[in-house]
Amino acid sequence: MRRDDIPTPALLLDLDRFERNLARMAAHVKRAGKNLRPHAKTHRCPEIARRQVAAGALGVACAKLGEAEVMARAGIRGLLITTEIVTLPGIRRLTRLVAEAPDTLVVVDDAENVAVLGREAAADGVVLNVLVDVDVGNRRTGIAPGEPAVALARAVAAQSALGFRGLQGYAGHCAHVIGWDKRRDASLAAMAPLMETRALCERAGLPVEIVAGGSTGTHDIDVELPALTELQSGSYCVMDLDYRRIGGRSGALLTDFEMALTVVATVVSVPTRDRAMVDAGLKAFSTDKPFPPEAVERPGVEYGFAGDEHGRLTVTDPSRAPRLGERIEFFPPHCDPTINLYDRIYAVRGDRVEAVWEIAARGRSD
Amino acid sequence: MRRDDIPTPALLLDLDRFERNLARMAAHVKRAGKNLRPHAKTHRCPEIARRQVAAGALGVACAKLGEAEVMARAGIRGLLITTEIVTLPGIRRLTRLVAEAPDTLVVVDDAENVAVLGREAAADGVVLNVLVDVDVGNRRTGIAPGEPAVALARAVAAQSALGFRGLQGYAGHCAHVIGWDKRRDASLAAMAPLMETRALCERAGLPVEIVAGGSTGTHDIDVELPALTELQSGSYCVMDLDYRRIGGRSGALLTDFEMALTVVATVVSVPTRDRAMVDAGLKAFSTDKPFPPEAVERPGVEYGFAGDEHGRLTVTDPSRAPRLGERIEFFPPHCDPTINLYDRIYAVRGDRVEAVWEIAARGRSD
Repeated sequence: MRRDDIPTPALLLDLDRFERNLARMAAHVKRAGKNLRPHAKTHRCPEIARRQVAAGALGVACAKLGEAEVMARAGIRGLLITTEIVTLPGIRRLTRLVAEAPDTLVVVDDAENVAVLGREAAADGVVLNVLVDVDVGNRRTGIAPGEPAVALARAVAAQSALGFRGLQGYAGHCAHVIGWDKRRDASLAAMAPLMETRALCERAGLPVEIVAGGSTGTHDIDVELPALTELQSGSYCVMDLDYRRIGGRSGALLTDFEMALTVVATVVSVPTRDRAMVDAGLKAFSTDKPFPPEAVERPGVEYGFAGDEHGRLTVTDPSRAPRLGERIEFFPPHCDPTINLYDRIYAVRGDRVEAVWEIAARGRSD
Repeated sequence: MRRDDIPTPALLLDLDRFERNLARMAAHVKRAGKNLRPHAKTHRCPEIARRQVAAGALGVACAKLGEAEVMARAGIRGLLITTEIVTLPGIRRLTRLVAEAPDTLVVVDDAENVAVLGREAAADGVVLNVLVDVDVGNRRTGIAPGEPAVALARAVAAQSALGFRGLQGYAGHCAHVIGWDKRRDASLAAMAPLMETRALCERAGLPVEIVAGGSTGTHDIDVELPALTELQSGSYCVMDLDYRRIGGRSGALLTDFEMALTVVATVVSVPTRDRAMVDAGLKAFSTDKPFPPEAVERPGVEYGFAGDEHGRLTVTDPSRAPRLGERIEFFPPHCDPTINLYDRIYAVRGDRVEAVWEIAARGRSD
C-alpha cells in the first residue's frame, strides 16, 4: 500500500521521525541518569508502547484502567495507572490485571481508598504496588504534599497487601508554559514540594524507590531534580502543534522532537476560487485548543473547522489553489485526543505504508 | 444490568425521552406534509436509524460514505450521502454500495465529478440517484444557486447512468442562530435561492422530486417552504446543550425535543473541600463549543475540562460537595462529536439498562 492509497481522513505516523524521537528521548534520559515510563494515553497503541519499551522504557504509564488492560493483554509490562481507582468493580478489575501483570503500579490520594484497596487486594491474593499521588499545583487529583502525603504513604505501608513504592506528581499546569526559562522556573517551583515529600517519607522510615513526573514540555527540566527517578512524558513520540509552540531551550519552537503525526485529508469540493473544502472536520482533529490544524508543507491555504466532517481551506495564495481530489496533510493541534478518534494509524516511510497499527485502547477511558 | 453498574465514563440514552423525540418529529413532519430523512451523522448507530425509519423516516442521511456503508450493511435503506464523493476509490465503493442499496442518493457540486460519476456508474452497471448540492450561504460545499445549479442538474440528467432527483441545500449557518424569530428570518432568506433554483430547474424541463434541507434548529421553520420536500434534522433525536440554548418558538430554551443524551462519570478524587475530580475529560465530551458540559439535576457543582481523562468540579454549594465514588451525569455540549467518542450507547429506562447499542459507524469518516 502506498501513502496515496490510504482512504481519508486518516492518521499517519512518519516512521523516520518517530524512530528519531524515541532514540532522542532514550539518549536524553540515559544521559540524565533517569528512567522513562512514557504516557501511553498519548497513543493508546500497543505497538508504539512495544517500541518505547524496546528503546529502553521501563513500561508505559496509562491514564485509565481500560488502557492498562489493553496494554497488559498485548504483553506490555511495567504499567503505571496514573488515575485513582475508587469503585469496587474497578478495584476488582485492577486485582485481576495485577494477577496477570504483577509489576503494575497504581496511585492513591485518599485514605479510605487505601483501606479498600488493601482489603480487596488481600481478598484476591495479590499485592498492589502503590505510588502516592501528590498535587504539585495542577489542582487535579493528588493529596497535598508534605505531612498529608507522608501520612497516606504510612497508611499504604500499613496494609499487608499494598506495597508503598513511591510518589507521583504531575505538574500539568507547567507543561505548556511558553518559553523555556519561564517553564523551567514554573516546573522546578511546582516540583520542589514533591522532592521535599520524598525526603520526609524517607526520614519517616518509608523508602521511596520511585518518584515519577514530568511532561514533554519539561523533559529537559525535571531531570535536574536529583530526587526524581522517572519521566512520564508522552507526546514526545509523535508531537503536536500545542507542544511545538511552547519553544525549546534554544529557539521559539520546541524542536527536540519532530512532528511525526499528521492527518491526511482530501479536497472534496472547490466551490469558489477563494475556498476549498476537505473531508476532515471536528471528527478528524482534536478541538480543545484555540488554534486550528496546520497544513504541512502546503503553502497557500489556511484551515478552519466547518462542521463534523468538513474543513474549510481559505486560499491565501491563488497560484496554489487546491484542486478537487488533492490530498493534503495537516498537523493536529493536540495529539492525544486526535489519535483517540481513529481505530488505526498508518505507519509510513516516505511514500510507502510500512504497517497499519491498531489503536487498540482507543475509547478505553473506562 | 442497572444504570449504576455501567462502567464510567459512558454514554447513556434515556429511552423515554428519545422515544418522545422520535414521536414528536414524526407528528411534526406529518402535520407539515413533509418527509423526514434524519441525519445519522448525529448518532452513527444503526439501531437508532432503524427506530427512526420505524417512526416514519424515509431513511437516513449520512455525512460520509463510510457511515452509509455501515447503515446499508445493517439493512437501512433510503440513504442520502450529503458530502461529495470525488476520488476514484471512493466512487468504486459507492457503486458497490448502490448495487446493494439502489435507492441511495448522492450529491454533486462539480461538473467534472458528474462526468466521472456517470462514466464509473455506467461501467459498473448501476444508476446513481443524484441531488445537486447548492450553497445556500453556509460557505461549505455546494454550487451557487440559480443558473450554475441548473446547468449542473442538466449535466447530471445528460448522463445515462445518473438520475437527477433534486436538490440539497444545508443552511448550517442558520441552525444555531439564537432566538426563533431571528433564526426564522435567517433561514428563510438563506433557503429562498434554493427554492428559486427548484423553479428554474422545472422551467428548464428538469423535474425536481426532492428538495432536502433543514436542521434541528430550523425544523419548525423550513417546513413553511412549499418547495422543500424533506427535512434532514439530526440532533433532535438526542439533543444537546448547543441546541437547547438557541431557544424555541416560545421560550428561551429549545424544548420541542428533550435532552435524552448524557455522559455518566464517577468522582475519582476529592482532594479539597472546594474541588472534586471526575473521570470524564477531553476524551469523554465534545470540545468544539465554548461552553462546558452541564451536570444533570445535580446542583452545587460546575464542570471544567482538566485534561484527557479528568473533569474538575468546582463546588459551588458546600452542602452538596461530591463524595468519592459518586456517579454524576452530564449533558454534553455537542451531541455528534460526543457520540463519536464511544463504541456503544447504553439505552436506559429509569434505573434499568434495556439495551446496549453499537455505535457501529463510530470513526467512519472515510
